[in-house]
Amino acid sequence: MTAPLIDPDRIEADYLIETAFDPMQAAEIMAGEQSSGTFISVPGETPELKERSAARVERLTVYDSVAQPTLPGAGRPNAGDGLWQRAKVTLSWPIENLGASMPNLIATIAGNLFELKPFSGLRLVDLRLPRAFAQKYAGPQFGMEGTRRLAGVHGRPLIGTIIKPSVGLTVEDTAAMVDQLCAGGIDFIKDDELQADGPACPFDARVKAVMAVVNRHADRTGKKPMVAFNLTGDMDDMRRHHDLVLAEGGTCIMASLTAVGMAGMIELRRHSQLPIHAHRCGWGALTREPMLGWSYPAWSKLWRLAGADHMHVNGLENKFSEADDSVIASARSLSEPLFEEAPMRAVPVFSSGQTVRQAAGTLQAVGSPDLIVTAGGGVVAHPDGIAAGVTAMCEAWDAAAAGVDLPTYAQDHPALAAALSVY
Amino acid sequence: MTAPLIDPDRIEADYLIETAFDPMQAAEIMAGEQSSGTFISVPGETPELKERSAARVERLTVYDSVAQPTLPGAGRPNAGDGLWQRAKVTLSWPIENLGASMPNLIATIAGNLFELKPFSGLRLVDLRLPRAFAQKYAGPQFGMEGTRRLAGVHGRPLIGTIIKPSVGLTVEDTAAMVDQLCAGGIDFIKDDELQADGPACPFDARVKAVMAVVNRHADRTGKKPMVAFNLTGDMDDMRRHHDLVLAEGGTCIMASLTAVGMAGMIELRRHSQLPIHAHRCGWGALTREPMLGWSYPAWSKLWRLAGADHMHVNGLENKFSEADDSVIASARSLSEPLFEEAPMRAVPVFSSGQTVRQAAGTLQAVGSPDLIVTAGGGVVAHPDGIAAGVTAMCEAWDAAAAGVDLPTYAQDHPALAAALSVY
Repeated sequence: MTAPLIDPDRIEADYLIETAFDPMQAAEIMAGEQSSGTFISVPGETPELKERSAARVERLTVYDSVAQPTLPGAGRPNAGDGLWQRAKVTLSWPIENLGASMPNLIATIAGNLFELKPFSGLRLVDLRLPRAFAQKYAGPQFGMEGTRRLAGVHGRPLIGTIIKPSVGLTVEDTAAMVDQLCAGGIDFIKDDELQADGPACPFDARVKAVMAVVNRHADRTGKKPMVAFNLTGDMDDMRRHHDLVLAEGGTCIMASLTAVGMAGMIELRRHSQLPIHAHRCGWGALTREPMLGWSYPAWSKLWRLAGADHMHVNGLENKFSEADDSVIASARSLSEPLFEEAPMRAVPVFSSGQTVRQAAGTLQAVGSPDLIVTAGGGVVAHPDGIAAGVTAMCEAWDAAAAGVDLPTYAQDHPALAAALSVY
Repeated sequence: MTAPLIDPDRIEADYLIETAFDPMQAAEIMAGEQSSGTFISVPGETPELKERSAARVERLTVYDSVAQPTLPGAGRPNAGDGLWQRAKVTLSWPIENLGASMPNLIATIAGNLFELKPFSGLRLVDLRLPRAFAQKYAGPQFGMEGTRRLAGVHGRPLIGTIIKPSVGLTVEDTAAMVDQLCAGGIDFIKDDELQADGPACPFDARVKAVMAVVNRHADRTGKKPMVAFNLTGDMDDMRRHHDLVLAEGGTCIMASLTAVGMAGMIELRRHSQLPIHAHRCGWGALTREPMLGWSYPAWSKLWRLAGADHMHVNGLENKFSEADDSVIASARSLSEPLFEEAPMRAVPVFSSGQTVRQAAGTLQAVGSPDLIVTAGGGVVAHPDGIAAGVTAMCEAWDAAAAGVDLPTYAQDHPALAAALSVY
């Protein structure tokens, strides 16, 4: 009986709420506002129309209460205990209200909700979709299997890095750095999300110079490192840049989700013949307040459906404000099936302050080597240079796979030993 | 000397920050992370590269401090007074880093910033752009002047309404309601943002049925009410739906900004021959925590540049959690010029719980009748029916323009008098 849970007949969304009102009453206000209701009852909202179109409160679980409201501007009832009650509520909608359209899904499940006055907190934490969405949207085109095939990496994570400095390198500098990384045996290279198509390092020239280097190494070794070129931009530029990467023998494109947006990502997926490496820069604005916005499992499901092959999840012991348990939950959520017959799993990408030190913990947390890890300074700032940085990362993941601790493994692996001395 | 302030040579963004570190040190971390730096100094970040590409801290104004961090996960220095300092900081970037690309602008000014560990609060409050952006993006195609021309309304606000119930009406129900609204003399009608292209009320059939009604009234009166049809959706659907609205004689399209996203809105603007009515549903997730995300003047500038003609700003005495001063600041910001030679002003759209009661206050706050007001229940729930609801709204705005208070004006305006008895 798992099928109905995965593929419900109605759109289902789970929210964490905080309210001074009776939580069921508050949940019904949410449901009304996001379907047939308005603030004042209107003549056309007949019982038949409500039955057909109203959102329903499916489940409500009351949690703890707090003395102070988390967010400003919330209203409170005239009577009551003065506390702000937290609860989890599940709403559902008939798909007939909107059709299987992802932009309209966003307007429905995450539209005019976050500002509703009865709530001092409102966060979308998960969602489940009818299979009509799987018929409309194809999901990841490559996923882990296609990524492994293109990159020629099997049975272990893809060891990657980010071209650093983030921005400011010329086309020639960039190609020279890629040359060193390829010589060092890297599996995966990505542009920083700040590297775009500026006059100081134009996209077309960068792709041509970098792919000349990559193709030369691929001819030499028989294995082509995957380079995720950041083509974030206007729609026509993204299509043209995709075509250039493909023509030059490239095997991956990168786009920033919050910068491109949903309609653009859907269109990019339809056009693309390459894996889409999805960057989540800007995500913090949607998630960092725990009682507002989105949690990653809900948010990432939409982008998986839209076709993101690789999804950034931050990293263990990262340099941002996110705790490890949140990173792990995000990474694991990417392998939960979206639909029974179309799981649409995405590849978790670990990054941010990643060095040799997080390999074992990451492997244990994810429970599988089906992931990409990217280290910026963790590779290029290695004391013996970039090639040693790549080697050390590979060694750290070999050690993790073998279940050997780093100091022991480093005894006969000098690149790893040198890395341990600085990271 | 106002020109340089409006059109700076570099991209400039203002942030409200909260940090336990020295605010200047924290600001420099922001600047480094969003340009040439990484967490560990990397060999390629030479002084020349920094000079060319690094973001700069232009200005810093220290505000008050607070005893508790607003957001979780922030780090603090080993020494210090234990307080969390608030400040306003302005960063700048050379446009050569990214080029005049709006999606890449978003990744730069609002990318991996909100999660930075030194910050317990980080909010983008304003921005100023070099005129290269005005050469790349055309801004609103119609604005207030084009909207007035199409709607045939001059010297006063467009009085509008939202088709309610939000969702659940059939095509025939919708056309019948539009018939009543047109008969009542309405200037502007919009779909609710939940009304999409579902099988219960398909877009194409709805547009054809509604425009048949609207065209009939226009033939009768010589004035065509503007109907904003919600075409939020995938890119190909949006283009096709735009073409249908245009072919049927429609004069406006509507799209939800957070649902469509930036690349999609840019593409829609390039395709569109009609004013774009931009809905902001979902905006609350980005703004409701005052120390996180975006403030409206910064956010709306991007959408104005992308071509939004009408921008929602909520409304006075609204039913959401937003205070009136925030609504007024949002509305006024839409008329601040984006560039000296291309002001790209957008039309503020007031909505949410709007009735006859907010007319005078809104007119006073905006200082001009160049706006659209939409009332849902405030029109259709009028005790004497929809036509009386429209009449009452028009009368309330006539009263505001004349500087007469509502009870006085209602003495010889029975529709307004009836409205005052229920709203």
